[in-house]
Amino acid sequence: MPIAQIKFMPDNRIIQVEEGTTLLAAAAQAEIFIKSGCGGKGTCGACKVVVQSGEPQVTGTGNLTPDQLSKGVRLACKTIIQGDMIIEVPPESRLQEHQVLLGDTQKGLLQESEHDLLETFGHHPLATKQRIVLSSPTLTENTSDWARLTMELRRVLKAGDRPIHIPLSILQNLPETLRKANWDISVTLTDLESGFTVTHVEAGNNNPLFGLAIDIGTTTVVVYLIDLSNGKIVDQQGSYNKQARYGDDVISRIVYAVESEENLQLIRQAVVETINDLVDKLLSRQSIPQTDISSAVVAGNTTMTQLFLGVDPKYIRLEPYIPTMSTVPSVTARDLGLHMLPEALVHCYPSVASYVGGDIVAGTLVTDLANGEDITLFIDIGTNGEIVLGNQDWLVSCACSAGPSFEGGGITFGMRAMPGAIERVVIDSDTLDVSLKVIGKGLPVGICGSGLVDCLAKMLSAGIIDRAGNFQLGHPSGSERLRETADDKEFVLAWAHQAGGQKDVVITENDVKNIIRAKGAIYAGIRSLLNMVAVDLEMISRIVIAGGFGNYLNVHDSVRIGLLPDLEPERFEFIGNSSVKGARLALLSQRAWREAEELGRKMTYVELSVGATFMDEYVSALFLPHTDLSLFPSCH
Amino acid sequence: MPIAQIKFMPDNRIIQVEEGTTLLAAAAQAEIFIKSGCGGKGTCGACKVVVQSGEPQVTGTGNLTPDQLSKGVRLACKTIIQGDMIIEVPPESRLQEHQVLLGDTQKGLLQESEHDLLETFGHHPLATKQRIVLSSPTLTENTSDWARLTMELRRVLKAGDRPIHIPLSILQNLPETLRKANWDISVTLTDLESGFTVTHVEAGNNNPLFGLAIDIGTTTVVVYLIDLSNGKIVDQQGSYNKQARYGDDVISRIVYAVESEENLQLIRQAVVETINDLVDKLLSRQSIPQTDISSAVVAGNTTMTQLFLGVDPKYIRLEPYIPTMSTVPSVTARDLGLHMLPEALVHCYPSVASYVGGDIVAGTLVTDLANGEDITLFIDIGTNGEIVLGNQDWLVSCACSAGPSFEGGGITFGMRAMPGAIERVVIDSDTLDVSLKVIGKGLPVGICGSGLVDCLAKMLSAGIIDRAGNFQLGHPSGSERLRETADDKEFVLAWAHQAGGQKDVVITENDVKNIIRAKGAIYAGIRSLLNMVAVDLEMISRIVIAGGFGNYLNVHDSVRIGLLPDLEPERFEFIGNSSVKGARLALLSQRAWREAEELGRKMTYVELSVGATFMDEYVSALFLPHTDLSLFPSCH
Ligand code: FES
Ligand SMILES: [Mg+2]
Ligand SMILES: [Mg+2]
Repeated sequence: MPIAQIKFMPDNRIIQVEEGTTLLAAAAQAEIFIKSGCGGKGTCGACKVVVQSGEPQVTGTGNLTPDQLSKGVRLACKTIIQGDMIIEVPPESRLQEHQVLLGDTQKGLLQESEHDLLETFGHHPLATKQRIVLSSPTLTENTSDWARLTMELRRVLKAGDRPIHIPLSILQNLPETLRKANWDISVTLTDLESGFTVTHVEAGNNNPLFGLAIDIGTTTVVVYLIDLSNGKIVDQQGSYNKQARYGDDVISRIVYAVESEENLQLIRQAVVETINDLVDKLLSRQSIPQTDISSAVVAGNTTMTQLFLGVDPKYIRLEPYIPTMSTVPSVTARDLGLHMLPEALVHCYPSVASYVGGDIVAGTLVTDLANGEDITLFIDIGTNGEIVLGNQDWLVSCACSAGPSFEGGGITFGMRAMPGAIERVVIDSDTLDVSLKVIGKGLPVGICGSGLVDCLAKMLSAGIIDRAGNFQLGHPSGSERLRETADDKEFVLAWAHQAGGQKDVVITENDVKNIIRAKGAIYAGIRSLLNMVAVDLEMISRIVIAGGFGNYLNVHDSVRIGLLPDLEPERFEFIGNSSVKGARLALLSQRAWREAEELGRKMTYVELSVGATFMDEYVSALFLPHTDLSLFPSCH
Repeated sequence: MPIAQIKFMPDNRIIQVEEGTTLLAAAAQAEIFIKSGCGGKGTCGACKVVVQSGEPQVTGTGNLTPDQLSKGVRLACKTIIQGDMIIEVPPESRLQEHQVLLGDTQKGLLQESEHDLLETFGHHPLATKQRIVLSSPTLTENTSDWARLTMELRRVLKAGDRPIHIPLSILQNLPETLRKANWDISVTLTDLESGFTVTHVEAGNNNPLFGLAIDIGTTTVVVYLIDLSNGKIVDQQGSYNKQARYGDDVISRIVYAVESEENLQLIRQAVVETINDLVDKLLSRQSIPQTDISSAVVAGNTTMTQLFLGVDPKYIRLEPYIPTMSTVPSVTARDLGLHMLPEALVHCYPSVASYVGGDIVAGTLVTDLANGEDITLFIDIGTNGEIVLGNQDWLVSCACSAGPSFEGGGITFGMRAMPGAIERVVIDSDTLDVSLKVIGKGLPVGICGSGLVDCLAKMLSAGIIDRAGNFQLGHPSGSERLRETADDKEFVLAWAHQAGGQKDVVITENDVKNIIRAKGAIYAGIRSLLNMVAVDLEMISRIVIAGGFGNYLNVHDSVRIGLLPDLEPERFEFIGNSSVKGARLALLSQRAWREAEELGRKMTYVELSVGATFMDEYVSALFLPHTDLSLFPSCH
């Protein structure tokens, strides 16, 4: 294939690609990441670019208007390179580096309780390092190297007759390693229920041993570097999940992955690459060699876990929504291609169901939910809302498809919590004048989840919308911000001249309805679960909220729009990234890891689409805050 | 590097190789295998070829005579290609296809006792196949695929809470496999002490399952294809070990392997290739797919086992001669590159010491040596003689470096038991006329181990040699067959015109002394072991002999030359290839495999080089049959 030269503006980045490549793929090669909500099917319209020069082949135009088309706007996923081009990638089409929600290690409730939990479970990491000095063999003391080493390990580890495994790759070099070290060695082992596994043998040393706690989120991947000797988080790093190239949400990624074996490998590689980049950064910053990273625990939703392992995700999205496995076999870093000790074992948190994954089990563990008689409600809000309810005696969980609204998806000016996103809104009820708080130092270009919750609550108070989300065009203020267009009714949050884009930043009636549907789904999920186990709201001692959304969540406004139940603010806790915290806990405590596997088995999954309960609850929740106002006494 | 064209005659085979390659390597590329006893060091002189045209670079001439040099004779290992050449490879320099000693399945004692042993141990193969029909999942019965399968496997296998492992590669495709098969599947599992391991999941079927019993000998590799359902040997195939390219014996192969990581990989690949060629032949002959081969048990000496697994063999040949491992972890066919089910497990027999390997443990198992109070002596004669003595209560073993004489090495006209080899000799005491029995239909070109034993016994009877092996040139017959040359004294077994080569086939005084040293080492090994445990010869109920040598061994002549102790012929048994038979037994019986691992641990290894006993015994055994004639009463 001939090679074409593509220049991306305003980055001014030039790359060479084969003709026949899509612009979307070419941009990824240039490390310019373009949104692709539909996974490159040409339907979502997220990947708009402007062709400034060049004559590409256009295989689809989706919902582009004649006006846009005449201005050179094209869908990057449906534009095939046929020769040199100059392309402008507008800001709204870009996946940008954003404020990644790292677990909060400075302050907050979880930091306290996590520390307690490690004390409760006991600090016995899955991987440990033993310093061993062997007697050297003689003609009469002539047992084999591995038998000699096993005998001593068995003594030191008090292993009884539990099996001690050694991988072939370590045996292959064992004789030389032992003799070069003059029989004074350090052995790294992982201790699991199935026995011990040797993961490294090296010359004797007292260097600390490290492990990785990894949260694979659909949007964001976070890695903690942990010193296994004291449990400390030495450093942490987060970034976008590079799988976003292949689709924004789990469904579009599954659709992409099941298209071909090659696609599955590409999407697997994308997350491996994401993790490796983070690990590389951590290791170089801390001057730690890869071979000191002896173990990793990974928490992610079921789809993320299966894609990370290259396990066919097809049936996760087909009724009856069956994941391939609940507990996950431990796999070597070598087999996965991670930048760690090659034989280090990587342990993935077990899943409960296709839509209640390892991240939720991890969250359940760190919220200490299954301990004591008090009932806890745990909610992880992302594209899906996952809910767990229970105490030491019982655990039920469900997932409700909230849609991507709270992450900015499907909202006209929706965006993730990154610089330029509106995160707080104040509206003057008389004049409808607006005050905004924007993330970062720039002008507002869109609105993120926490901003949307705020906005809805304030629009309701100000009488801009009614309880069903209908816009009240005849608002007494007569404000120009409230207006009707050809397509919809909308409210202007920021005028073009105040905004980072060239357009007014608005929220439409359709946006509002989307958010109502999302919050309705989560609230209906909570109610359905409560009904199922005949638990009254008042019986819930704690409501723990986790997720990227939760970091900025205004509890008062969340209750006002009926996203969260109307309880005293004291019962709410924010836990941030409970997934990575759970990964850390398991890494540091064999008992925690066993408990996690136990939790996975113990938790009952309720499929909300069975029976009418959820639908009834959902319909009742499509008002602000709810059809039944008696559920929201504080909102009168 | 420029490319040269090399033509090999009389094969008339032409290949292209890079200049700078040795002729030895080029011949191997042309699939013409040339002997290289010294592993290509230029010292053994086995790799003689004749340069008919071309101007190579000669980097060594070893012991070639000026006459040979002038006739174009060169050492293939020391001849570097500099341009096109025509090369003649004489028959005596070739490793030829030979009568491979396959285990005798038609007749003989072992066939009987092996059958008994399988009954004793019980027919419970390491690998089994289970037909499973699962209920299909629903929205309410929504456990994961693997949890659903585990539950049913646990029930069918009566697995209690023993672990059931599944490799990632099988999980990756499990969902599709289950659904395409409509939940009616066949699962192949291996049952080991550490738990069950799933090695294959496929659509439900009742095809039989097969396993491989593999003997990796230094010279010969033998594979049995076993039907696991009934234990039958479906087919068998043997061939040279392709590692012979890199040296004739274990020591020269170790020397080659430890030179570089690349060499170790090459020599590992050579045996893997050997096995795969055999497996390919068996499978195509029997029309069986690779995926029906579910398990393999391998028996080989310690060096063969380590080289097969790519485990650094360096310290096997350095005092104090320590092997890397005794018991060997099971490894997947995928990791080893064998032509089987990729996740099938390959189990190697444990070693006792560097020079008492898995083949000897296998032999000990099939001779039923550790059963009952009767004492058995087991001898495996090859390049090394390995000896095991014991009964149910105790087991001792040793190895004595017999040298390669009995396999034809270091003997002027020595060769392996292949067509053209003299295997029986009769000498007229008066005239010294000779009658020969030659393997195959052709003329005699050399003499193999069984022929050498015969020859020595007959030369002693005829007065050609005295008890010390000295030639008696003044023999009353005045036969021209008995003669002195510039270098040595020799006896002509076949005149040039009767022989396949162009020379008289002779046995020299030096040859005789070599054989005496070899038989002396084995006999001394037997005596040393007996002394050590204070067992009298008469207390031994059975002497079991195994190995390529044993197939043709004349017990009477072996006793006459003092190779075997002087006991009634009824006490001797021939067992043929006990190594592959032991591999089969373990493949078919979990109890046998556990017993084998137990045997390996139980057996005491005695290093004969410690203390003076062996040396004293050895010196006394350097007569025919022995210095102490009272040990050989039947020989007066
Ligand atoms: S002299 Fe060439 S291989 Fe030995
Ligand atoms: Mg998450
Ligand atoms: Mg053998």
